[in-house]
This record gives sequence, C-alpha cells and structure tokens, in this order.
Amino acid sequence: MVTEQMGAARTPGRPRSEKAEKAIIDAAIDMLAEGSGVAELSIEAIAARAGVGKTTIYRRWSSKEDLVVDALATLKAPIPELDAATVRENVVRYLAAMQQESHNRRTRCIMNIALSESERFPHLARRFREIAVRPRREALREVIQRGVDSGELRPDVDVEVAMAALSGAMLFFTKWRDNDDELPADLADRIADQILAGLRP
Amino acid sequence: MVTEQMGAARTPGRPRSEKAEKAIIDAAIDMLAEGSGVAELSIEAIAARAGVGKTTIYRRWSSKEDLVVDALATLKAPIPELDAATVRENVVRYLAAMQQESHNRRTRCIMNIALSESERFPHLARRFREIAVRPRREALREVIQRGVDSGELRPDVDVEVAMAALSGAMLFFTKWRDNDDELPADLADRIADQILAGLRP
Repeated sequence: MVTEQMGAARTPGRPRSEKAEKAIIDAAIDMLAEGSGVAELSIEAIAARAGVGKTTIYRRWSSKEDLVVDALATLKAPIPELDAATVRENVVRYLAAMQQESHNRRTRCIMNIALSESERFPHLARRFREIAVRPRREALREVIQRGVDSGELRPDVDVEVAMAALSGAMLFFTKWRDNDDELPADLADRIADQILAGLRP
Repeated sequence: MVTEQMGAARTPGRPRSEKAEKAIIDAAIDMLAEGSGVAELSIEAIAARAGVGKTTIYRRWSSKEDLVVDALATLKAPIPELDAATVRENVVRYLAAMQQESHNRRTRCIMNIALSESERFPHLARRFREIAVRPRREALREVIQRGVDSGELRPDVDVEVAMAALSGAMLFFTKWRDNDDELPADLADRIADQILAGLRP
C-alpha cells in the first residue's frame, strides 16, 4: 500500500484514482521484476501495462524516478512493533523481520535492481533511503539508545557501529552469503546474543 | 591482473596473448562501468572494443559470463596480509582494506551491476563468489578461529556470526549508508573494538 508519506505531492485519493494508483504501482513492479532496469522503464510502457493514460501517471508522480521509489517502498515489509521490555527482544524482532523480508525472491530481485541503479539515478536512491531505509534505521537506533538510557547497555556504546553490526550481520547472511544454503531459523537470536554481549555493562 | 586461478581453462600466456587478454578484460570493465548490464554485453562488442577477433576471446573464455567473472575479479583489491600478532590488528587490516576498496566509485558501480545480475546470471554470481568472495571470507574466518584457538577469543564464539558482524558492519557503512557523508577514518578500529569486545573471554 502506498501511504501519504511515501510519494511526491498528489491529489487526494478517491476510490477510482486509488485503483489506478495501485495498477500503476503494480505495473512498475512487474516490469522491474521481469528484469527491466530503471533506464529501460518508460512512463508510456507503465501506462500501457496499467491500462491508464500517461496523464493519470503524471497527475500523481512528477517523474519516473518518483514512481519507482513509491513502487519499491510498497515492497518493504512494515517495521515491526519494537515495544518489548528488553533490548534483546526488540533487536530479535527487528532482525527477524529483515530475515523474513529476504525470503521473497521477487522483492530481492527488485531491490537488487534498485541498488544497482543508485549510481545512475542518485535522486531515486536518495528518495528511497529517505522513505524506506531511514525510518527503519531510526527505529533500531531508538531501541539501542533506549537500552543505553535504561542502563541495559553500556553508556559508551558506539550506537552507529552497534546498528551497523546488527543490521549488517543480517544483511551479510541474507544478501551476501557465499552459498545457497537455507538460513538458520535462529539467526536473529544468534546475531542479537553475540553482538549484544559486547554492548552490555 | 588475472591470475591462473581465476579463469576457465586457457592456453599458457605468451606476451602477445597476455596483452590481448588485458585489452579484453579492460574492454569488458569499461562497458560495465558505462552502465551496460551483463545481458547487453556481447562477445562481439567486447571484441570490437578490445581490437581483437571473437575467436581470441573464445580461446580464453568459454562464455561471456566467465569473462565477466574474471573482469570483476580483477577489480577486487588483494587480501591484505593477516599475519599480525593480535586478532584485533588483523581484523582492523581486513576491515580497512574493505573500506579502501569502497572508495573507488568505478569499482562500486561495476560491483553493483554484478550484484543486480545475480538472479539473472546465477552461474556468474556463483563463480564470482567462488573466486573473489570466498577466499576473503576464509581469510577472516581463519583470523577469528586462530583467536579462538589461542584463547584471545572465547571458545564459544559463534564464528559465522562474528564474521557476519565484522564484514556486515563495514558493508553497512560502505554500501548501505543512508547519507553521502565521508566515512570516518577510524571506522575499522571502531568496528573491531566494539564487536571484539563481545568475543573476548
């Protein structure tokens, strides 16, 4: 679902235009999933695939890149609730959600394409980071900072490095593994336990 | 430089064929750097760019994918010497080399392309992991294992997770940062210190 925060300015949604919006987003995602790079995508082709006119697209998005950003953002799983009592439990929830997301082959494929385009389409990469990456990181940062504030973690914890170690360890397994083995079911727990061991008083 | 281990079977190098080989690899890298995906690359176009005949390429590589693997492998920095007395020093050398490599915009761009193609060209991704990724990981695994064996690290260290946390943390900064700030010069030290703190007895 596309929420208000995600896109460029657009007119208030009515049922009919919401349906068109979904068709447009779906068309863009399908084409990316089929291996189309951002450069090869055109508003014309997306419109044809979605069964709408080009002006319907331009009414909602000022550029192809903004449309792709919204399309990619719909693929991200929602941030899990991080309201458990302990840092460990919140970190495990966060990491488990990352692992879950990585199981979707289609999502992985599309994200790979988006990543590969970041040098060619810096605006796209920047917007995607703003609306899809940064809110997740802030959520994790808060979890760690709350742990520092409550004394569950050491006061001198390097919060940036702690975030990078937790997320990076999971990404290392989900994106950078050097084999095609199944990921262990307790991966989130193992990462949380080992890294948090270095952050406790 | 292309070393023997890297490629498919090929005839022993003579000065003239080495020169041709370098021209072919350079042509493939240039085309990837210009944004050509692997699908768009053709042996024909690479041959034309390198100023050699197609048979010169086919004499060395059995497929376009094998050629691309060798081309990508030449872009990886060599694994640093990991013969220091402490785990910490070896880890810092390893991470600093990763950070160094990430500064090369051209390398980053080409690696992004390679990554994005891994779903479409599984053979390419597999070979690249074998010749360029796995040897690095084994080198880091050895450093950690030596630390466990010597008692510098705890005997119950989860070696897989420790590797993922160290490399993943650096990748998180070099590949997935959510801003364009310069990376801190002491990043390798910070990552090593915080993660190793959780691995010591």
